[in-house]
Amino acid sequence: MICSMLNIKYPIIQAGMAGGPTTPELVAEVSEAGALGTLGAGYMTPQQIKTALENIQQRTHSPIAVNLFLPQNYEIEDDAILAMQQHLNIYRSKLGIPKTNNIPYMEDLFEKQIATVIEAGVKIISFTFEAPTKRLVEKLHASEIIVIATATSVKEAIQLESIGVDLIVAQGAEAGGHRGTFLNVKNESMIGTMALVPQVVDAVSCPVVAAGGIMDGRGMAAALALGASAIQLGTAFLTTKESGADSIHKQTILSSCDTDSKITKAFSGKSARGLKNKMMIDLESRIQGDLPPYPLQHLLTSDIRKEAAKQGNKDMMSMWAGQASGLARVRTAGDLVEDLVDQCESVLKKTTWR
Amino acid sequence: MICSMLNIKYPIIQAGMAGGPTTPELVAEVSEAGALGTLGAGYMTPQQIKTALENIQQRTHSPIAVNLFLPQNYEIEDDAILAMQQHLNIYRSKLGIPKTNNIPYMEDLFEKQIATVIEAGVKIISFTFEAPTKRLVEKLHASEIIVIATATSVKEAIQLESIGVDLIVAQGAEAGGHRGTFLNVKNESMIGTMALVPQVVDAVSCPVVAAGGIMDGRGMAAALALGASAIQLGTAFLTTKESGADSIHKQTILSSCDTDSKITKAFSGKSARGLKNKMMIDLESRIQGDLPPYPLQHLLTSDIRKEAAKQGNKDMMSMWAGQASGLARVRTAGDLVEDLVDQCESVLKKTTWR
Repeated sequence: MICSMLNIKYPIIQAGMAGGPTTPELVAEVSEAGALGTLGAGYMTPQQIKTALENIQQRTHSPIAVNLFLPQNYEIEDDAILAMQQHLNIYRSKLGIPKTNNIPYMEDLFEKQIATVIEAGVKIISFTFEAPTKRLVEKLHASEIIVIATATSVKEAIQLESIGVDLIVAQGAEAGGHRGTFLNVKNESMIGTMALVPQVVDAVSCPVVAAGGIMDGRGMAAALALGASAIQLGTAFLTTKESGADSIHKQTILSSCDTDSKITKAFSGKSARGLKNKMMIDLESRIQGDLPPYPLQHLLTSDIRKEAAKQGNKDMMSMWAGQASGLARVRTAGDLVEDLVDQCESVLKKTTWR
Repeated sequence: MICSMLNIKYPIIQAGMAGGPTTPELVAEVSEAGALGTLGAGYMTPQQIKTALENIQQRTHSPIAVNLFLPQNYEIEDDAILAMQQHLNIYRSKLGIPKTNNIPYMEDLFEKQIATVIEAGVKIISFTFEAPTKRLVEKLHASEIIVIATATSVKEAIQLESIGVDLIVAQGAEAGGHRGTFLNVKNESMIGTMALVPQVVDAVSCPVVAAGGIMDGRGMAAALALGASAIQLGTAFLTTKESGADSIHKQTILSSCDTDSKITKAFSGKSARGLKNKMMIDLESRIQGDLPPYPLQHLLTSDIRKEAAKQGNKDMMSMWAGQASGLARVRTAGDLVEDLVDQCESVLKKTTWR
């Protein structure tokens, strides 16, 4: 049912990882393989989105999705930003890049991003970081666009359904990258996929997509058994050949184990799961409470993380990954999709309580 | 295979919840129904264990298990204990029970507990809180006793296998009650069941039991799909008719939702997941760092929690529960076992990626 709704062959969604991993090659390869590729466009300018979508559309005629971040309000004193910049200048010195005391400004591109995506004829948009407004959902529906949003609790899922969202991603605590929590953000419940999915499935009537800790056909079969209509994977696609993740990020995932990741706000001001490194641990120990909120902290640390990646210095990068990153492998995204389906089928065939 | 190893019909283990829930009626009913009942004997005296086992053995000839806590070393200053007692006296006043400044002492009963269990002819023992020594495992094997132990990470599972443990419970972060973590206890990784189980299954060659967030046949099917050989459930059995959990604890579970639980050390000095209440939140905000360790804090708060339960005051009780407690129902333990198997079978039959 979800496959006919999205017009895809397999109920598999490649998560919309912002910041580089979702190259046009990756998105197109995933969709060509029969799953749903997603352009992680949260940090992209309208022009970058337009260019990327044109590139993707030259590679595939299959459906693709675009993931966008809903804008967020925040308040912070300039002093706290300056204090953070001063601390971050230590890293900048180590990397040999210019120190700065700038107060960054993030232009609200959301309306223009949306317009670009609609214009390009994309028929599936997924959101994270907030519940979209009812008005936005209606506007997208008027353009025959399917709306996907992320919930990390039953309450969030119920709210998303009431807004008219078509598909809900139930994101378990295992998931890598940013968490989609938008209610009780300060007191996150961190509900595991095994507990979250069946409770969300029972609470809403729209199809539910399971995310968090799913890396292979065993996870796919398990998620479907829990009542999910589809699965969403991020980390598993990060190490594929078409992924644009930095090679040191890929290597670190490939040699990681189950206890290597941690939820942190250090890099972006918003909870996200990544592989532990020096900058994460150091920032966490120094800044308690007065951490600049998202998206400010994201902007503040961006130059450092980009330069560190360029220099192959994994101590100062953000390396998003989920708790099952130990199961990651190198292959084409198309092979990953095929492996997921084949293994899922064989697992379902042989699994029995007997 | 696990069923023939344990001589049970269904690959379902009722968790060994200490402190009252595992009445002889519950343990016997579970085992009579074809699953494995477990006496949670961690806090019991040898005489209490003997009496309970006699009671159980009058009710069933099916295999049962006994769960014991491995002894732990700890160090703490008397001043910290007195400070805690002084704070806890506020609760004692509210409940109308005697204040105390006693420094509690916990007799190490472990050797006597083990002797009693062997003496009673029990053939399955499960451990939590530590890895058993190789010597202990060999001693139990010499008495033809199957040894089960708990891991919350791949590293712990590998260590348990190297010691010769027969079955490993992979306890995900969703699980209610005490966590079995014994490595890196101060920096717990809280790995979700969906991520933990397949990684543990890949890492060890002995059968793996999935625990954490499993409440119904969907969870059972999912766990088996992930590669687990059996499932272990605590919360689901807590609300059964035979369970000895306090009625207010049962009621609170039955009306709970996914975000109601939290990991806390407040009640026992050791990480455990329970439903949030005033005492948990209050103790957590007051005591940072100098919380008496397990089992001291457990002893210090025991009189309060017992009296609160007696008075039906849920503000000062520990109400252990997992993150899927919202799926709990009232029924006999035998019906729960049957429902698990029936639903698991039907889920596995109908689940497909198509």
